[in-house]
Parts: sequence; structure tokens; C-alpha cells
Amino acid sequence: MRIGVLGGGQLGRMLALAGYPLGLRFRFFDPHPESPAGHLAELVTGAYDDVDALAYFGAGCDLITYEFENVPFDAVQYLTRYAPVYPPPEALAVAQDRLREKETFTRLGIPTPVFDPVDSRVELNHAVERFGLPAVLKTRRFGYDGKGQQVLRTRADVAAAWEALQGSPLLFEGFIPFERELSLVAVRGREGQTAFYPLVENWHEQGILRRTLAPAPQVAPELQQEAERHLTLLMETLNYVGVLTVEFFQHEGRLIANEMAPRVHNSGHWTIEGAVTSQFENHLRAICGLPLGVTATRGSAGMINLIGTTPAPEKVLEVPGAHLHLYGKQPRAGRKLGHITVVASDPRTLEERLQAIQACL
Amino acid sequence: MRIGVLGGGQLGRMLALAGYPLGLRFRFFDPHPESPAGHLAELVTGAYDDVDALAYFGAGCDLITYEFENVPFDAVQYLTRYAPVYPPPEALAVAQDRLREKETFTRLGIPTPVFDPVDSRVELNHAVERFGLPAVLKTRRFGYDGKGQQVLRTRADVAAAWEALQGSPLLFEGFIPFERELSLVAVRGREGQTAFYPLVENWHEQGILRRTLAPAPQVAPELQQEAERHLTLLMETLNYVGVLTVEFFQHEGRLIANEMAPRVHNSGHWTIEGAVTSQFENHLRAICGLPLGVTATRGSAGMINLIGTTPAPEKVLEVPGAHLHLYGKQPRAGRKLGHITVVASDPRTLEERLQAIQACL
Repeated sequence: MRIGVLGGGQLGRMLALAGYPLGLRFRFFDPHPESPAGHLAELVTGAYDDVDALAYFGAGCDLITYEFENVPFDAVQYLTRYAPVYPPPEALAVAQDRLREKETFTRLGIPTPVFDPVDSRVELNHAVERFGLPAVLKTRRFGYDGKGQQVLRTRADVAAAWEALQGSPLLFEGFIPFERELSLVAVRGREGQTAFYPLVENWHEQGILRRTLAPAPQVAPELQQEAERHLTLLMETLNYVGVLTVEFFQHEGRLIANEMAPRVHNSGHWTIEGAVTSQFENHLRAICGLPLGVTATRGSAGMINLIGTTPAPEKVLEVPGAHLHLYGKQPRAGRKLGHITVVASDPRTLEERLQAIQACL
Repeated sequence: MRIGVLGGGQLGRMLALAGYPLGLRFRFFDPHPESPAGHLAELVTGAYDDVDALAYFGAGCDLITYEFENVPFDAVQYLTRYAPVYPPPEALAVAQDRLREKETFTRLGIPTPVFDPVDSRVELNHAVERFGLPAVLKTRRFGYDGKGQQVLRTRADVAAAWEALQGSPLLFEGFIPFERELSLVAVRGREGQTAFYPLVENWHEQGILRRTLAPAPQVAPELQQEAERHLTLLMETLNYVGVLTVEFFQHEGRLIANEMAPRVHNSGHWTIEGAVTSQFENHLRAICGLPLGVTATRGSAGMINLIGTTPAPEKVLEVPGAHLHLYGKQPRAGRKLGHITVVASDPRTLEERLQAIQACL
């Protein structure tokens, strides 16, 4: 069976690494000829609106999926004539629009920050008056890794954010003074069966995920159940197939949904070594109609992203239980070049090993 | 860094799957254009005596290794002009000749069955008289998976084996009425550092490995130490770099060396999920001069080879802790098409899961 994947970045690369043992073949589509997935699979290069390239890509694929949520919806929709596309394009459309996303959360009773669409300076002022500061102004579309969003703390920030972001449809969101960020990686199969990894704790810096701790420390069973209920509802509503991640803020003991990603997710990379079945394998199992794999952890795991530069591999690999994942990308400031997952049988040993890794960076 | 691999079979394929996360690139050489490694890496096809093809393959490789011990020695030796070759070609030469192999074992004090080279019917008769029956007659070279060997139980077997095998240099070996077969997968780095996986128990049928249990049940610490001493000596003598496996017979509480494989080995496939670092990653770490990874187990593991046919994936993947590995090969009687590794936190659960897998086959 040949899986077509829109997007040839590291997520696609790790999907292929998980899928080859299942006997799957892969074909990637990406505008960039240097895409990491191209090292280990067929790569079709073309713009996402190049219908000929998409047609060439789609013909001969048995199933199509995507690893990047900013793939144009039209491209994804077009490809349904060649093969089933999972997750369903409709889920992608919701995830691509922060307003539709927040409206969907709200409709399902999943708590979110307060929000209001903003299409003019007047509407922005109105939102500030209505909800107050601090707040966050975001583009409704094409945001990731903190791109396309600005925190508003003062009136001056409001003016600056408007200057920077105006011209795109925007969303004003209340700022949550959260205690921590958690995410839940879930998977739903073609028959509607679901599985959930444990909630993990994420630490972001400048909008980019830096570190994940799995499982998140001190999570009451009720919080895990609450998160699973939210994702179950969301996946059922979207008729979802594949891996779905929701990032939450934890605030005063409650979960407040920040955003969803209709794909394998950076906060699930630890599952390669830290869970019985990785998120990548489970995404493929789901879209292929295979039974979902066990999502239980194997000890404690920590994941550290390598942003902009990579450490000396010989230093990293000296740390027991450290697993290096390089994506084969050219270094560039702010770019995700790889990650390191550290596993240990208990949280204390894990913390020691993470400190040893931190010393290499 | 680009690793050249002679042989593009499943072992090469799994090397590449382990090496991509380390940021390595791969180029394979194999006479067969349909080789499994070709699905996920560059594949140069050519005969092993095609100097032009070898030169094309070797140019641009930073390191060269092999995944098949019947690669002609001359090809390996020739490639040393392009890049360092690990394991050292001399180790390959020893492993390719059952007589040199047994002589090396003996010189190092590693017990082996009695043996005698046989180049004529007269010498064969002489060996039978000297050592008695049962015994095994093997070709000195190019044997694997039970190919090129015959068990001699009666005088009629002796005649039939001579008819079948004559024309090649042969080796007569005493038959060991072993209690079980064990193997030790070891790895040695460029600085001489070593690491060992636990002894595993192997079950062969018609000369082909069918099932491995890791760790082997009821292994006294002394037996593990004895095996490690043997491999330490062997690796030092051969100035070895990479993964080396020795298959042993266990007989009356002692280890008797049967054969060595200068490469990653089928009895080490369980390490992908069952050990902290897989044999594939450790082979690459060793040849790249990186620190060796932890070889400790993660629970109990069992590995079942898929020979000739493969089961329905949806049945296999329903078993908790089951990991399917298909090699992308066309089915053919007696051909290794894949394997299943099952992991569990304890041997009893493992046995239940292995029985569930057996029911799918």
C-alpha cells in the first residue's frame, strides 16, 4: 500500500520511518526539493496549487494524509478524487481557521479563552474594551510555532499588533494566566475506536515548543478523563481518522483549549521510545484501518527540541537512555532541526539525564 | 555522513531505519534491483565483481559496512580505497570460512564441536571413523540459514551428503546433542569499548531461525559472563568494530560456539523494541565512532520470523505489544519476509501474547 503524504518535513519523515516496518510505501509532496522526507522516500515537488503536480502525486496513492496543517484546503480536497484522504479535509478546514476552531470547541462545551473575530481597527478596539488586557491577537489562518500572533499587554501593544497583522482576518483572544501548558495526543480509527496517550507537559519559548515531559507530573485522573472527553467529542464531531492533538492551558485546575493540530504533533515525539506504540505508527494504523496500538508509556520520557543548532552527537549519545533524532535539515535560526528523547524507568533518573542533556546544548 | 552498505536486504533496511534519526544518509549496493533497502534509500545495483559499479558506489561514501557475510571478500577489500570499511575485512574473511572460523575459536579457547576439513571422500571416511556419527557435513564457504549443510546420522547419509556437497571445500563437524541454542549479540566501538545484549534463546527449524526469546530463560550469570568473555576475546583478536553475533549450543551447562556472524543478526531483531538501544543503532554508533548505546532490556521480548508467508496485519496488530516488521519482499517458500516482536513487562504475559500471535500464523 502506498501512502501519499502532503508535506515532506520531519513529521512526514518520522511517519515513513514508522510505516516502513508495516510494509507501507510512501510518496511525499512538498514545494521544497530539500525536504527531510525526501531522503528516505519518493518526493514530488510542486506548488500546492500546481494541479498537474498534485495529479501526478495523487495517482497511484492508496491513501493520502498530511503532516502540515497549512496545506491549502483546495489541494487536499482535490486529492480526494485519487484516494481517501485522512484526517477528513473538513477537520483540516476547522483547524486552519482559529475562529472556526474556537467556535467548534465552544459548541462542544470545551472551554476556550474568550474570543472575538477582528476585521478592523474598530473591532479590535471594541474587543479590547469588552474583554480587557492582556490578550492575544492572532491571524485566523496560517499560524504555527507562534507565527502570526502578538501578545497585547498595553495600548501601545495593541497599535503595534494591528500594524503588524492587519490585512489578514484576525482573532482576538483573552490571555489565560495559565499555570502550565498540557497537550493530549489522541488517535481515532476508521471504525471510530479511540486511544489516548497521557497528558504531557509542554514548555514553550518564543512560541516554539522546547521541551515535553511525558507523562505530565501531577495529573489527577479526573484531568486526564476531562481531556479525553473533550477529544472524544471533537473527534466524533469531525468524523476524525488519525492522530489529533489539542494543546490546553491548565488554569486553576481546569483545562482550557488553546488549539488543535489535525496531525502527528511535536508534543508526541516522545512516544517513539516512550510509549508502546508511537504516535506515528498509530496515525498510520488509524488511516489504514488497522487496530490501534497500545498507547501506554514505557517509563518516563522527556523530549527536548533542537532549535537552530544541534549539539555534538557524541556528547548526547553518551547520556544513557538518550535518543537523538536529527531531521537532515540545514541549520537556520529558529528552525526545528531535531529532537532528543530521553527515557528512564522513573522521573528522578529522567530528570538527571535531562540535566546531562541540557549540559550538551 | 553517508554510509555505504553492501547488501540491500532486510538487515540493511533496518540499519537505515535506525540510522536516519542519527542524521545519517545511506547508499546500498546489491545485485538485485528489488532489494528491500531500495525502498527507502539510494540503491546501486551491480554484480559484486563489477568494479565500475563498486567504484560508483564507493565514491562519496564516508564509511562502508556490510549486512551480508557472503559479500565477496575482494569486493570489500577493493572498497577500502574509498572509505574505511567496518567490520574490518579480515573479520569477514574469517567468518566466510567455517574452517578458519573454527580454528580461530579454538585458538582463543572458545569451545567448538570437533571438526576436520574434508576435501575428498577418503578424508570424509576418515573423519567419520575418527569422530563417529552423528555429525554434520558443511561447505566451508557461502552457507547461511542451513544452506550447504547436511546432518549425517547413518552411513547412507554420509554417501548422500558427499553426493550433494562434493566439489566445494567441506568441513566435518561433530554433532552436539544440545539442550538449546543461544546467541550473544555484542558490539565493539572504534576505541575498543564493548557492550553486550543478554544471551537469547533461539529455535531453528530446517536451519532457519524461527523464534527468539530475549532474554533467554534460566541463564546463570556465569553463563552470560562466559559468553561475554568469548566474544571479548574474539572481537579483540579481530580488531572488530560493529555488531558481532556468535551462535552457541548449550550442552551440559556449557557453551559451544557454532558460528559467528560479522553483522547485525536475526537473533537481535528483538532489540528494536526490547532493548534501550537496538543492535542496528549500536552497529551504526560503533562504526561512526559514537558512544555505544545502553543494551539493557526493556521487559521481556519474543521474536517470531515470518517465513514464506505473512499473516493478516490486522490480526497481528490486535495483540497488545506486538510490533510487525515487514521487509517489502515478494513471498516465496522459505524466504524471510518479516518478523514480529512482542514485548511485555514479564515473561508470563509475553508467553500469552506469543501464543496469540502464533494463532494468527
